[in-house]
Amino acid sequence: MTTHTPNHPLQRVLAQIDEEARTLFGKGKVADYIPALAQVPPRQFGMAVALTTGEAFVVGEGRKPFSIQSVSKLFTFVMALKTCGDALWQRVGREPSGTRFNSMVQLESERGVPRNPFINAGALVVTDMLTTRYAHFDLAFLGKLRRLTDDPNLRWNPVVAASERATGHRNMAMAYFMKSFGNLVNSPELVLDNYCHQCATEMSCLQLARATLFLANGGRDLDAKGQPDEQVLPPDEARRVTALMLTCGAYDAAGDFAYRIGLPVKTGVGGGIVAVVPGRGTVAVWSPELDEKGNSLAGLYALERLVQLTGWHHD
Amino acid sequence: MTTHTPNHPLQRVLAQIDEEARTLFGKGKVADYIPALAQVPPRQFGMAVALTTGEAFVVGEGRKPFSIQSVSKLFTFVMALKTCGDALWQRVGREPSGTRFNSMVQLESERGVPRNPFINAGALVVTDMLTTRYAHFDLAFLGKLRRLTDDPNLRWNPVVAASERATGHRNMAMAYFMKSFGNLVNSPELVLDNYCHQCATEMSCLQLARATLFLANGGRDLDAKGQPDEQVLPPDEARRVTALMLTCGAYDAAGDFAYRIGLPVKTGVGGGIVAVVPGRGTVAVWSPELDEKGNSLAGLYALERLVQLTGWHHD
Amino acid sequence: MTTHTPNHPLQRVLAQIDEEARTLFGKGKVADYIPALAQVPPRQFGMAVALTTGEAFVVGEGRKPFSIQSVSKLFTFVMALKTCGDALWQRVGREPSGTRFNSMVQLESERGVPRNPFINAGALVVTDMLTTRYAHFDLAFLGKLRRLTDDPNLRWNPVVAASERATGHRNMAMAYFMKSFGNLVNSPELVLDNYCHQCATEMSCLQLARATLFLANGGRDLDAKGQPDEQVLPPDEARRVTALMLTCGAYDAAGDFAYRIGLPVKTGVGGGIVAVVPGRGTVAVWSPELDEKGNSLAGLYALERLVQLTGWHHD
Amino acid sequence: MTTHTPNHPLQRVLAQIDEEARTLFGKGKVADYIPALAQVPPRQFGMAVALTTGEAFVVGEGRKPFSIQSVSKLFTFVMALKTCGDALWQRVGREPSGTRFNSMVQLESERGVPRNPFINAGALVVTDMLTTRYAHFDLAFLGKLRRLTDDPNLRWNPVVAASERATGHRNMAMAYFMKSFGNLVNSPELVLDNYCHQCATEMSCLQLARATLFLANGGRDLDAKGQPDEQVLPPDEARRVTALMLTCGAYDAAGDFAYRIGLPVKTGVGGGIVAVVPGRGTVAVWSPELDEKGNSLAGLYALERLVQLTGWHHD
Repeated sequence: MTTHTPNHPLQRVLAQIDEEARTLFGKGKVADYIPALAQVPPRQFGMAVALTTGEAFVVGEGRKPFSIQSVSKLFTFVMALKTCGDALWQRVGREPSGTRFNSMVQLESERGVPRNPFINAGALVVTDMLTTRYAHFDLAFLGKLRRLTDDPNLRWNPVVAASERATGHRNMAMAYFMKSFGNLVNSPELVLDNYCHQCATEMSCLQLARATLFLANGGRDLDAKGQPDEQVLPPDEARRVTALMLTCGAYDAAGDFAYRIGLPVKTGVGGGIVAVVPGRGTVAVWSPELDEKGNSLAGLYALERLVQLTGWHHD
Repeated sequence: MTTHTPNHPLQRVLAQIDEEARTLFGKGKVADYIPALAQVPPRQFGMAVALTTGEAFVVGEGRKPFSIQSVSKLFTFVMALKTCGDALWQRVGREPSGTRFNSMVQLESERGVPRNPFINAGALVVTDMLTTRYAHFDLAFLGKLRRLTDDPNLRWNPVVAASERATGHRNMAMAYFMKSFGNLVNSPELVLDNYCHQCATEMSCLQLARATLFLANGGRDLDAKGQPDEQVLPPDEARRVTALMLTCGAYDAAGDFAYRIGLPVKTGVGGGIVAVVPGRGTVAVWSPELDEKGNSLAGLYALERLVQLTGWHHD
Repeated sequence: MTTHTPNHPLQRVLAQIDEEARTLFGKGKVADYIPALAQVPPRQFGMAVALTTGEAFVVGEGRKPFSIQSVSKLFTFVMALKTCGDALWQRVGREPSGTRFNSMVQLESERGVPRNPFINAGALVVTDMLTTRYAHFDLAFLGKLRRLTDDPNLRWNPVVAASERATGHRNMAMAYFMKSFGNLVNSPELVLDNYCHQCATEMSCLQLARATLFLANGGRDLDAKGQPDEQVLPPDEARRVTALMLTCGAYDAAGDFAYRIGLPVKTGVGGGIVAVVPGRGTVAVWSPELDEKGNSLAGLYALERLVQLTGWHHD
Repeated sequence: MTTHTPNHPLQRVLAQIDEEARTLFGKGKVADYIPALAQVPPRQFGMAVALTTGEAFVVGEGRKPFSIQSVSKLFTFVMALKTCGDALWQRVGREPSGTRFNSMVQLESERGVPRNPFINAGALVVTDMLTTRYAHFDLAFLGKLRRLTDDPNLRWNPVVAASERATGHRNMAMAYFMKSFGNLVNSPELVLDNYCHQCATEMSCLQLARATLFLANGGRDLDAKGQPDEQVLPPDEARRVTALMLTCGAYDAAGDFAYRIGLPVKTGVGGGIVAVVPGRGTVAVWSPELDEKGNSLAGLYALERLVQLTGWHHD
């Protein structure tokens, strides 16, 4: 994709947001429940916009790789939709959870069927389906992202993955709990291995915006030169993915995101957020400090400002 | 507004949907928890589309008044947003509920602050705010709807209102419960009186589509001749109302509606649904038989078909 | 009954406990959710023991009337068992609640059937049954207590009753909630009137010990001279009442009471506790300051000490 | 201990109960969630009484070993109380659970601290404490039971233990969940190994009655000749153990057991129940068919009849 000089109006908008967003440094808190993630220096902010025209815009630490964490759930969901189709919906719902991303209560009252693919339990079921489908799903996942970003060097951080695997007792609890309801086919240990690899994948804002561009482009990817490439999903499916992002993409702050920003998003505790502006492009932001709901504080601010300054919104 | 002859392409689409939707008769169940509503003959279907151009299209029983029930929550929410502004959000949230529309559990764990204005508890808080604001809120509500529909004869059905009031023990329970948390100012009895009047309001599909047209038109209403009229809400607020409809408008089926239909909606147990196509127009459908989630069975089908046949969607 | 001089060994034990218990003054908190109750001066302690031999022992403010509050649930339960028999168990359970005395959550998941007759919801159902059975149940209740205490002047405090009725929104919520499940026959307003009268009844420790003595005496009351009197309940039923007191008498601290004290009890937020020593007698204590579970702080201490010093326990 | 001839009155009572209890065959359902347990032939009934006098009484299959399952929680609790003392209560509560024995909901709302040592989660914490204390806790446990029964051949059934371990996904889920809250020290795998060994221990009714006799005898065991032996627990602690059995020993039927039977019990899904009559003796019953609460159907009946026919009860 072509990135732009400071004179382009959109580049100037991003520069302004970059400046403003940095004033929020110190007001949030870096995720500390994964020891290796807690090491990330807090005062960082990056942002990238990719347009369906093939143009791209970057500011701040927008080219610096970070741990995508739960943003990975968007890609595994797309892979599961493609390989399993509507059979997916027999094992996971598509309603907002209304509770913390790792709650057990709902799982018990709904007999092991997670509310949607974007909460941890739902993502574990999706990973389980893909673990059955692929011999080494973690490698298949990485291959998929390498193609979408045109970057053969994309990798997961093994230290973060191991840290997450060693301390992820609650995820193990959820996996075993779903297995007790018959909604996990593979061993919890194997599913968690794959899950931790996908979460520990590192991408920059620019790569993230680029890798999700097909969602803004009727399901069709663009190649490195901005020309139409692989049809990742049929247009109709792409629209449905964004619908799910809108209702479920920000954990129990989904309603607030829709109200304030109005764009389909997927957030991660690494401080990354990706947003889709259907027909127009994608936006990725990253800043490690989180608000009390677990979403990037400066990232949320940046998206809100972008919508105000550009008039982009979902409708 | 100008209604159209059978030859208009959109009118033909509606006629086709009308025919298809009627094949679903007998597959749902009329709401029976309000005795007077259980009397409504089941095998009925109506639909109306209002466009921001001032045109309108009607099929089936689309001119026959029905009990709007929870669709009224959309209008009270708009009135509260206009009169109370963001102070509203101190007493009610804007997250999807994830549970049945009349659950107490959530209300207890969240200390009397309902999840959003479209579940019963949230609507009771909204009605409480408006009960404080207006001497006779039920009459103010009716006046508002009469202006939006240009119909001075709009009324609520006193038999339905009385039936609902006499059997609405759970709504009384919720009102008293919120009062115990200090989140209800007026007496539960008075709030329920007003609430039952607003729910028992009767409108046709055509009137409903017409009354919500401002939400598709940047907040501005059209007059009887299709000319720009009152700015009901600022454009930004109108967008936010549709965001809330998208995430919370169909109770605990909101995610499924967004996924399958992709349009902001508000449903009611009377069998009515109103949907907004931002920038283009509104759609109202009515059919009394409900699915197991409490949404109109044929109405949901009709909206899904309309989106397929017209390509209208939210983005 | 015959009360005793300071020289009797048991009287000396009580005197010692009285002295020790007063050192706890200031460590608890008077119930403040009923405005009229919050007026009660905190630094008070009374205790009385009634034996099946007809003897009685009193210390401190043991002859001063206080608001029995939830201790009244013991008497209404006995009345319901007598008049309705096992039909009672179709409308209320007999399992410990495991949660706060006024929780809604359980009521929702168990479809309006309260866990036991000693939590508020269960007591409301019991009062509803008795409201159907007696023309003026509140007066019948008072009459019953007057006979059990041989005191024709026993009364409820109208100020406390009115205060409780006016602020009892949560109780109203529970009553309406149960009515929505079909588990309340009379109007919530009437049931609450009766309920508040029974809770506001004022008795002294001596009267309370005396009024419950039949539970320690195989169901048979003693007259004012200590001679066998009315068979209030069959022996088997009396044993069952104490079993329920043991498992459910101290709200969500029932397990802790059983573990530490081992006697069947019923507590109230007025600071009163009554305990039964089967075959031997009854103990009533009163001290208005409550611990964080809502049970009398000094009262709990006094019972624990009494068991230690006398070796009385349940088995 | 000395077992008795058919002419002893108590032996005749047991013979009558044996005959009556067998008429219930076919009315319950053998536990099927552990595959190896589901193989147990259903139509069996055994019962044994051990008295503090050193006498014993047996009927039916009362000498046939069965899987004690959750009855083992009573012995691990006693061992933990002895080795850890009141420190135990920092990691587990002592309140009735009020919900199914393997519920996650409570564990989440109470942040990983189980309600009591007799529900699965609580027993896992107890086993974790003992796993820390002993190099091979499963062997220490077996040794303890061999001493209490004077039977050096007591063993666990390795097939049942392996079956339980392989299918115990929910127990693993609970162990990991508690670990996520910091309330499990050892690895869930090791704790589950020990837990499954203890549950799969096989004892007859006679052995069970004999092994718990110290609880009826002020904490002191009797030797094989019925003479006073080891003080297993101080008298006070023994009383507290029975208090916990009374409030928590029958899962969410504890209140009903207390009401109907009035004796401290501990039940298991293998169909065994042990009951304590303080000061007098112990009773063990076994019949594999369970009622809908998971307690032995004929066993419950037998205890109820024993209380009726002997007049033994808790007070």
